[in-house]
Amino acid sequence: MTESTETVLARVDQDLDKSLERLFALLRIPSISAQPRHAGDCRKAAEWVRDELTALGFAASLRETPGHPMVVGHDESPAEGLHVLFYGHYDVQPTDPLSLWKSDPFEPSITTEADGRRIVVARGASDDKGQLLTFIEACRAWKAVHGTLPVRVSILIEGEEESGGANLMPFLKANATELKADVALICDTGMPDRKTPAITTSLRGLVGEEVEIVCATHDLHSGMFGNAARNPIELLCKALGSVRDDSGHVTLPGFYDNVVVPSDTVRAQWRAIFPDDSATLAPVGLSQPAGEAGFTAIEQIWARPSYEINGISGGYEGDGFKTVLPAKAMAKVSFRLVPGQDPEAIRAAFRAHIRAVLPADAKVSFTEHGASTGFAVPEDGPLLRTALDALGEEWGVPAVSIGCGGSIPVVAEVKEALDMDSLLVGFAQDDDRIHSPNEQYGVESFHKGIRSWVRILDAFSRR
Amino acid sequence: MTESTETVLARVDQDLDKSLERLFALLRIPSISAQPRHAGDCRKAAEWVRDELTALGFAASLRETPGHPMVVGHDESPAEGLHVLFYGHYDVQPTDPLSLWKSDPFEPSITTEADGRRIVVARGASDDKGQLLTFIEACRAWKAVHGTLPVRVSILIEGEEESGGANLMPFLKANATELKADVALICDTGMPDRKTPAITTSLRGLVGEEVEIVCATHDLHSGMFGNAARNPIELLCKALGSVRDDSGHVTLPGFYDNVVVPSDTVRAQWRAIFPDDSATLAPVGLSQPAGEAGFTAIEQIWARPSYEINGISGGYEGDGFKTVLPAKAMAKVSFRLVPGQDPEAIRAAFRAHIRAVLPADAKVSFTEHGASTGFAVPEDGPLLRTALDALGEEWGVPAVSIGCGGSIPVVAEVKEALDMDSLLVGFAQDDDRIHSPNEQYGVESFHKGIRSWVRILDAFSRR
Repeated sequence: MTESTETVLARVDQDLDKSLERLFALLRIPSISAQPRHAGDCRKAAEWVRDELTALGFAASLRETPGHPMVVGHDESPAEGLHVLFYGHYDVQPTDPLSLWKSDPFEPSITTEADGRRIVVARGASDDKGQLLTFIEACRAWKAVHGTLPVRVSILIEGEEESGGANLMPFLKANATELKADVALICDTGMPDRKTPAITTSLRGLVGEEVEIVCATHDLHSGMFGNAARNPIELLCKALGSVRDDSGHVTLPGFYDNVVVPSDTVRAQWRAIFPDDSATLAPVGLSQPAGEAGFTAIEQIWARPSYEINGISGGYEGDGFKTVLPAKAMAKVSFRLVPGQDPEAIRAAFRAHIRAVLPADAKVSFTEHGASTGFAVPEDGPLLRTALDALGEEWGVPAVSIGCGGSIPVVAEVKEALDMDSLLVGFAQDDDRIHSPNEQYGVESFHKGIRSWVRILDAFSRR
Repeated sequence: MTESTETVLARVDQDLDKSLERLFALLRIPSISAQPRHAGDCRKAAEWVRDELTALGFAASLRETPGHPMVVGHDESPAEGLHVLFYGHYDVQPTDPLSLWKSDPFEPSITTEADGRRIVVARGASDDKGQLLTFIEACRAWKAVHGTLPVRVSILIEGEEESGGANLMPFLKANATELKADVALICDTGMPDRKTPAITTSLRGLVGEEVEIVCATHDLHSGMFGNAARNPIELLCKALGSVRDDSGHVTLPGFYDNVVVPSDTVRAQWRAIFPDDSATLAPVGLSQPAGEAGFTAIEQIWARPSYEINGISGGYEGDGFKTVLPAKAMAKVSFRLVPGQDPEAIRAAFRAHIRAVLPADAKVSFTEHGASTGFAVPEDGPLLRTALDALGEEWGVPAVSIGCGGSIPVVAEVKEALDMDSLLVGFAQDDDRIHSPNEQYGVESFHKGIRSWVRILDAFSRR
């Protein structure tokens, strides 16, 4: 690292409070992409990002899609050399159940934990507003000190990552020439613990489905029809309850086709970080991994496909009791996929299973909620080692390659549309409560995240 | 029937519009007993009934309970002779889903069906405001013509029939001397078709349960924990989906202990009214009875116990999709019981089943929502034949004894607390949509219901 880079890092430290103020401003915008009533807020968040990039000297603009707009910015202060495309998303998850939040999800605050850690609490603090700003603030510090960036930087911030992201792939394809770079940098992942920096080299994909079962033409009185009329909730329970057996094994035919078990070497590395399951499960009050026997909890999350019921609804859900025999019931389910699994084959197998168990009087309908394949980033990618080393310098601990149980469809889409590999560098913690009430992001994640990007951009410019 | 009774019937016909106006006034009060915010409306409905009875010359009053108040009225214009206790309930079911109502549930209207039938549409039109007013309007007509009633009449109208009715039994016991009569008349049942009057001689009881399963300490991201963390919705589905097997047989140990199959004679009578299942199921869009093989749909409803899931809730139920792995899930379930079954034994067997299928990381809690036994009214009761004959005169078709799949706990409670048999005379139709959106009550049910009571009271006075 050069002395001039030290100056950039010092600038990051000096400006941290202002960086946090900017994070707060973005967090105050309730950009929930799944809820149509927040469409205006999504646009507001996009405009906020565009304006920040413009102020930094990027050629930035909003780009319309059939859904929420994209933000694209380019800074080519160095006219040649390595070109990176940074990706993040300005949209956030819904906030329900709102009653479990200790403060307004869109009125961010900094609080201090019992262990002294300072955290930013708000919806999107970690996923992904805090994370995406680590990169933008790193660019800001570089620009402030040098007037230029060390490498060519393009930035793409989307607004539908949390709601299916159907418009990203067409957008990438339609703008492939503009967006193509040497590597994509994606900041939407986490660290395996508080101290160890990491780059995520495997991801799970996702198939999302909504299933609705309708029996009678209207809700019935259970006294007048109970026993003789089909109960759609019961049918839904039978259908959804038989997708996975009691040993955690998914029973859909072909579900595990082409699934590769991680090598013994990889499993050994992971077990070194997580010697037992308690580090994974105890923080959320659990003790036993629920997936297939023979795999540790972290292997179940990073390397094995899952089946989840994400929501269910039917009949009377309010106070007290209602002796209704409901006409319909609904569930939202998803499968997390590992590399090798075909999302559409699994969607078809799920639908076939549901249809096979339903009797004649039940009508079923399905709604797609996205599909993406699992993905593995090549372990020998040319920039991976450089980035791991830069992270290790910042955190004082060697950086590791890890898996991620989440879906980041952009990785596969960037590969397909732009023929470009991705580096997944993120600073989230497992207890950031992303997608849950009281989402948080460590001030240290934010601060050292900015510093990490300063070092990575520096290392990239000198390779 | 005497000429003076013809005069009373004529008075009923002449006053029908005013009777309907009074019904509308009661229907406009949203007396939903299960929802605490409607407590004031329940009291308002009770006061309305009290005021009507007072105006008719009853000694009527509100009687406080730990829940919604009772209304009790006595008219002893004939000082001796037969004494009847009429029972009904002024409370109604919740109205959700409100979006399926074609008009405001508490703004009653009369509409004409395609077949020319005129119906009153409102929550409670049939269950039980329309039904209870048939009796009160019959009393009104008697009083208007004769100044007295033909038999001694006491009236008890409660306000918690739709929400557990926990306060009725203590009230009956505490006021047994006051409420004891020769027979209870209960108007909360229906007719097997449009033309055949009926008295219901068997009823199912009910066990209501709410079950909540909690796994993690908070909602999780399915990408970060999916597979390794227990999913309470999946556990709930497995547990609830295995209570009844695919042949409609409930698998809880001891569930069918002491259940008596109806005699061949009774089954033959029922099959004469319902030669096949289509009359029962086709009106609600169904074709196959869902209960145990070997029983017709009407037998499954009138004479066999049932298991129903009345409501289920968990995770994300809103628009779009949320990749949440929820911390908890809830369901409301009930069993309809036939005579011989022990409600508390069945509750215990259900809880044991749920506990047995849950793994270590799942915590379960249960909430009781009422219990009542099934009940059979003696076929040879002294007043049954008299009442059947009076009904047959009004409707021009012989009246029949039928079963009812619903729970009317007051029958067993009146028997236990007051040592009194009940006659269940009602005029509801199977398509009244009670407990459902667009509840209705035929103007003919209301009108001939009033006339039926005039004849029954007359017949009772002359036996």
